[in-house]
Amino acid sequence: MKIAIVGFGVVGSGAYEAAQSVKGLEVAAILNKGVAKGYEHIAGLFRNSIDDIVNDPEIDLVVEAIGGVDLPREYVMKCMNAGKHIVTPNKNLISACYEELSACAKANGVRIAFTPSSGGGIPWLFNLRRTRRTDRISAVRGIVNGTCNYILDAMHQSGASFDDMLVKAKELGYAESNPAADIEGTDTLRKTVISANTAFGTSIKESDVPVYGIDSIKACDIEYFGKLGLTCRLMMNASIHGDSVSAYVEPVLFGPDALEASVGTNNNLITLVGDCVGTLSFYGQGAGKMPTGQSVIQDVIDIRDGINLSAIETSADYKVDNTAEVHRYYIRCSEILPCIENFCDKVEEYRGAYRVITKPVSVACMHEAGREMREEGLAFFFAGMGE
Amino acid sequence: MKIAIVGFGVVGSGAYEAAQSVKGLEVAAILNKGVAKGYEHIAGLFRNSIDDIVNDPEIDLVVEAIGGVDLPREYVMKCMNAGKHIVTPNKNLISACYEELSACAKANGVRIAFTPSSGGGIPWLFNLRRTRRTDRISAVRGIVNGTCNYILDAMHQSGASFDDMLVKAKELGYAESNPAADIEGTDTLRKTVISANTAFGTSIKESDVPVYGIDSIKACDIEYFGKLGLTCRLMMNASIHGDSVSAYVEPVLFGPDALEASVGTNNNLITLVGDCVGTLSFYGQGAGKMPTGQSVIQDVIDIRDGINLSAIETSADYKVDNTAEVHRYYIRCSEILPCIENFCDKVEEYRGAYRVITKPVSVACMHEAGREMREEGLAFFFAGMGE
Repeated sequence: MKIAIVGFGVVGSGAYEAAQSVKGLEVAAILNKGVAKGYEHIAGLFRNSIDDIVNDPEIDLVVEAIGGVDLPREYVMKCMNAGKHIVTPNKNLISACYEELSACAKANGVRIAFTPSSGGGIPWLFNLRRTRRTDRISAVRGIVNGTCNYILDAMHQSGASFDDMLVKAKELGYAESNPAADIEGTDTLRKTVISANTAFGTSIKESDVPVYGIDSIKACDIEYFGKLGLTCRLMMNASIHGDSVSAYVEPVLFGPDALEASVGTNNNLITLVGDCVGTLSFYGQGAGKMPTGQSVIQDVIDIRDGINLSAIETSADYKVDNTAEVHRYYIRCSEILPCIENFCDKVEEYRGAYRVITKPVSVACMHEAGREMREEGLAFFFAGMGE
Repeated sequence: MKIAIVGFGVVGSGAYEAAQSVKGLEVAAILNKGVAKGYEHIAGLFRNSIDDIVNDPEIDLVVEAIGGVDLPREYVMKCMNAGKHIVTPNKNLISACYEELSACAKANGVRIAFTPSSGGGIPWLFNLRRTRRTDRISAVRGIVNGTCNYILDAMHQSGASFDDMLVKAKELGYAESNPAADIEGTDTLRKTVISANTAFGTSIKESDVPVYGIDSIKACDIEYFGKLGLTCRLMMNASIHGDSVSAYVEPVLFGPDALEASVGTNNNLITLVGDCVGTLSFYGQGAGKMPTGQSVIQDVIDIRDGINLSAIETSADYKVDNTAEVHRYYIRCSEILPCIENFCDKVEEYRGAYRVITKPVSVACMHEAGREMREEGLAFFFAGMGE
């Protein structure tokens, strides 16, 4: 099978490297602005226009690795309309445009696979979809953002501030120069949407899912969690509650016996709960050139070999409703607003701020309170605490 | 596709239940001594002789769930010679007879799949084989015996004795009435052989792999580990060292940051290390009616759909050599024999016995010393300690 790689950054070049060891697979064209540094020996493969790839009848499959939404959406549609299969690690594209892309794929008799879009090197979506063949999945959850996990783990290990650890994450290449999507939780949001839709066969949207990230966490929060034997992780969460699903992104505190507490540096741990299989978790590298690159090529091989296990099969229309999902929260805030007053359980003053442990309260209620506190310009942070 | 289930115990009946929700799959016959209790409503499916299944041209695939080696081997060969595919969760059979069965399958143009033989409900072997499509695997390791993990975890949690926790494991159905294969490590051995052969594409034998189980661990060992912040787990271990592989089964002590330390009750955690993908771990139920039953049906669906990802593809002839694998050990023994004297690092007396931390020593050397201590009739226990 001849394939093209569109976009030759970290993941695109990783996919190229990973393809080299696979028999019967040939990277026949690469779309990039000029010949990539270090790849002068394959200068002949580089193309300047997507049309060179769209119009090449020998290319059966296109790996989209540009990132973003609008340009890749246009390119992917063009390629599918020309009868080419698509593999993409692009979570933004899949989260925002899956229905449209899926319909286009069906109309053209081609496939679109996106296992690396959630979990990077971890075959999470593939196994999630495979589990659905024999089981009903009732929940998915997990640490799916390596940047945030690196920062939180480093803060727990060192006691350092968020800002210092963000700088270190950038130095190590774990965080991008603009880390907003990671630390504010929107990257985790996209993976939540894709995972929930794959798990439950539905089509929830990004705008349905409340998100609270880690950008306002402080060393004093982490110090307090440490004293309680708790570890903070940014989590995607989605589960079935009757006819609706709860779906949300928030920091969560774990006790020492939880696997999540042992997930160090930039690793991911992603879990499904099935009626038959029970709790099944996957741990590994959620990003990076070779882990993600090989996952791209796994999807390519699946398409080549007719293994169809990475599509979302929409069969239900669940609405997102976070009122039935109830647990306690830790809140640190500069002022106790009326919106949280009703559900405060324990309140202590600490260095001019308040530390609150709430009564069990719904996720909907807490995230709404978070929105109000943000609007009031309060300094605050919150994290879920289990039952 | 019409299938038959041969042997209708925990896993056989679990496979039956799991098959009910899969469209296009029909359990057409069950081999069992009489109609199983609770299954009177499908009495017509029960057969008394394997020949009823072998000679039924409508049956395309046979699930072997009898257990043991000789009888299932005979039945499986008969079925394959009659052109039927095989799915089996039988680790004893696959570990002992894979080459012969694989050759028979090839000769008859049928397939034999065995994902649930190692990892129960965890799609471990499937993903291990899938990873090999794009990656070179350098190591596999893991907690693969739920009975031992239940006992060790319960000892750590309660401080109770091995014998008491073994009794409790039997009461809960986690241990069989004869638990020797679990606690002496032979169950873990079989999964080590199957996993190593799948990972490395080779054909090591059970007799090549030294095994040390947990049947001589005492509450005083666990208490000591607890004081050091260490947790004891029984581990399968196999890794590539140049032209050979190390492969062995032994208890291993983990620090609090290791995922293995957080694996509670009867769960499993199994890990591969790939050149591209890095460390990838799978956590879940390694046994049980529905987890293992659904894994059987996953293999059935794969065969039906032409997804060929659970075979061992033998391409290398690695010899087992445990001399290159070197780490420290904890030893508790009633006497310090010459065989361990050379590599003792720290020795302390404790209640008439000795607690030893060794210098880094090869696995070959330690297991040989264990054999000598056993021959001398010494009371002792040892566990690996990492570097």
